[in-house]
Amino acid sequence: MIDEAGLPEDAPLAAVWRGPLVESIHRGRLAVCDPKGNLLEAVGDTEAYIYPRSAFKPFQALPLVLSGAADEFGLTDEELAVACASHNAEEPHLDAVRSILRKSSLTEGDLQSGAHLPLYESEADELIRSGEVPRPIHGNCSGKHAGMLAVCVHEGYATASYRDPGHPLQRYILGLIAEICGLREDEVIVAGDNCGVPAFAVPLQSFATGLARTTTGAELPDELARAALRIRDAMREHPYLVAGTGRLDTELMGSTGLLVKGGAEAVLAAGSQEGWGLVLKISDGTHRAVRPVALAVLGSRGVDVPEVNSSVRGLHGETVGEIGPLFQASDTA
Amino acid sequence: MIDEAGLPEDAPLAAVWRGPLVESIHRGRLAVCDPKGNLLEAVGDTEAYIYPRSAFKPFQALPLVLSGAADEFGLTDEELAVACASHNAEEPHLDAVRSILRKSSLTEGDLQSGAHLPLYESEADELIRSGEVPRPIHGNCSGKHAGMLAVCVHEGYATASYRDPGHPLQRYILGLIAEICGLREDEVIVAGDNCGVPAFAVPLQSFATGLARTTTGAELPDELARAALRIRDAMREHPYLVAGTGRLDTELMGSTGLLVKGGAEAVLAAGSQEGWGLVLKISDGTHRAVRPVALAVLGSRGVDVPEVNSSVRGLHGETVGEIGPLFQASDTA
Repeated sequence: MIDEAGLPEDAPLAAVWRGPLVESIHRGRLAVCDPKGNLLEAVGDTEAYIYPRSAFKPFQALPLVLSGAADEFGLTDEELAVACASHNAEEPHLDAVRSILRKSSLTEGDLQSGAHLPLYESEADELIRSGEVPRPIHGNCSGKHAGMLAVCVHEGYATASYRDPGHPLQRYILGLIAEICGLREDEVIVAGDNCGVPAFAVPLQSFATGLARTTTGAELPDELARAALRIRDAMREHPYLVAGTGRLDTELMGSTGLLVKGGAEAVLAAGSQEGWGLVLKISDGTHRAVRPVALAVLGSRGVDVPEVNSSVRGLHGETVGEIGPLFQASDTA
Repeated sequence: MIDEAGLPEDAPLAAVWRGPLVESIHRGRLAVCDPKGNLLEAVGDTEAYIYPRSAFKPFQALPLVLSGAADEFGLTDEELAVACASHNAEEPHLDAVRSILRKSSLTEGDLQSGAHLPLYESEADELIRSGEVPRPIHGNCSGKHAGMLAVCVHEGYATASYRDPGHPLQRYILGLIAEICGLREDEVIVAGDNCGVPAFAVPLQSFATGLARTTTGAELPDELARAALRIRDAMREHPYLVAGTGRLDTELMGSTGLLVKGGAEAVLAAGSQEGWGLVLKISDGTHRAVRPVALAVLGSRGVDVPEVNSSVRGLHGETVGEIGPLFQASDTA
């Protein structure tokens, strides 16, 4: 009745319990790879493609360093971190984005990141109370867009068309992603991201391999390795600027020292200097399942992680259920 | 590695496409049953339990009619509809809830439905702008709670403890659910709902059978059948009061004449006067998958439904993907 051909194999990874029963189930796929592309852990079909979405932002920010734009404009590590961010639109995020624009002789009007309410609820409420309409700078991707624009200014590329898949900057990013992930350019699939720039898709394990490379510098040409480590260090030193208050990326980067970046539709990328990259995709795209699954896998790799299970609370503050992994992470090898 | 024992069998039912690839997948289970309990269509393990959550509200409202409370207090069909609602907290919803309370000599202070921002975004924004804090009446379940309280007043039950699983009203509801679904009382599992009243779980196909019964009156004792049809008609005549602007239940009830009620964690119940009840549970609890799957199944049963697939739009208004069923509904029998 249902054609499962073409759907990648996955496995149940997390459950939401209510009372004595499982109420909902989240399936997913994951891979842990080393920089040579060896698969250290795998769940499901890891050769099948994923859209890393915002988890690709650290790769998309590489031209900022590689082109020399970051040096020409004197960008700080804080500004490099926000260029890799899916930020909360808290004031320090907006300040860092504005600073990239100012240093590149641009303004908020040049941003084409698309407007949405701040991800951080109290900032969103504040904006609603003020009667202001969300602007592109409030979009969680505005740092990425400011960074892309800075490269265009530095390189003399057109700024108005920077979102086009055929723009030289987007072609440059596609080439970098292919190189880092060990793919031919025609093996990288191009679609559209919600913020209007290309969304690239690659095999899940190719991304995990690329992540291991960019987190260690291994298996990359010297200049690319140096740029990757500069981005990595900027993010790890400023985890708050990469996401913000209450966000998993910020919490995990701060507490573990890993490079951590999430993406829409429940993607998480976590890279270790010890020489591995973990990529997780919850098949149904539900964010709530990312945390318990990621923590369980990281814990099994010897990373010191917080409590894996968390309570589901009702409107009266009482515990009505629990969310946690179904996954015995130590058995994944 | 992963113990799938104890997890009910399900199947992929909907996909979210981005560009040429499936980005996310939603699995689920469903049953269509007639009032005698015959399984007319099935996907996955339909004997496994589900928590119908708010999809049980029409059953939870039956005591309002059966006890005589609705008649004593002169409740209108609009008020019966809001007693079955997961409402948007638009003004007509709040007015109807207030009217039930007033007719039962109660006030907003008696509601223990738990406070959350109105489900309808513009009402939520309005409340934020006004500086008001959400009150229990804004909770989507406040009509159900007002109805429960009205029964307590009519029956002389304690109103302060109406949420307790051992309260006579909650025991009464448990007994009704068992009777309608053809179960023993000890086969109904009791947990806690987010609004603080019991959340009951039953086998998916037992709920579909019960829904077929309450939508037709068939296979029920006369008094219960009459009460069920009165609730059914109140809901179908006032679909706006059961949910509100932009909501699937309201749209589908209005356009199809079916009895439609959704529940949290992606449950949908749709009952037809022609003698069947459809219950759908998206395994991962994601609401966005309910609509395409429900429409595909209903369409295959000859119901005139709107366009099944819908676009996923980016922040610039462009189409970046699509959500639709994977499921060839006509093949489910």
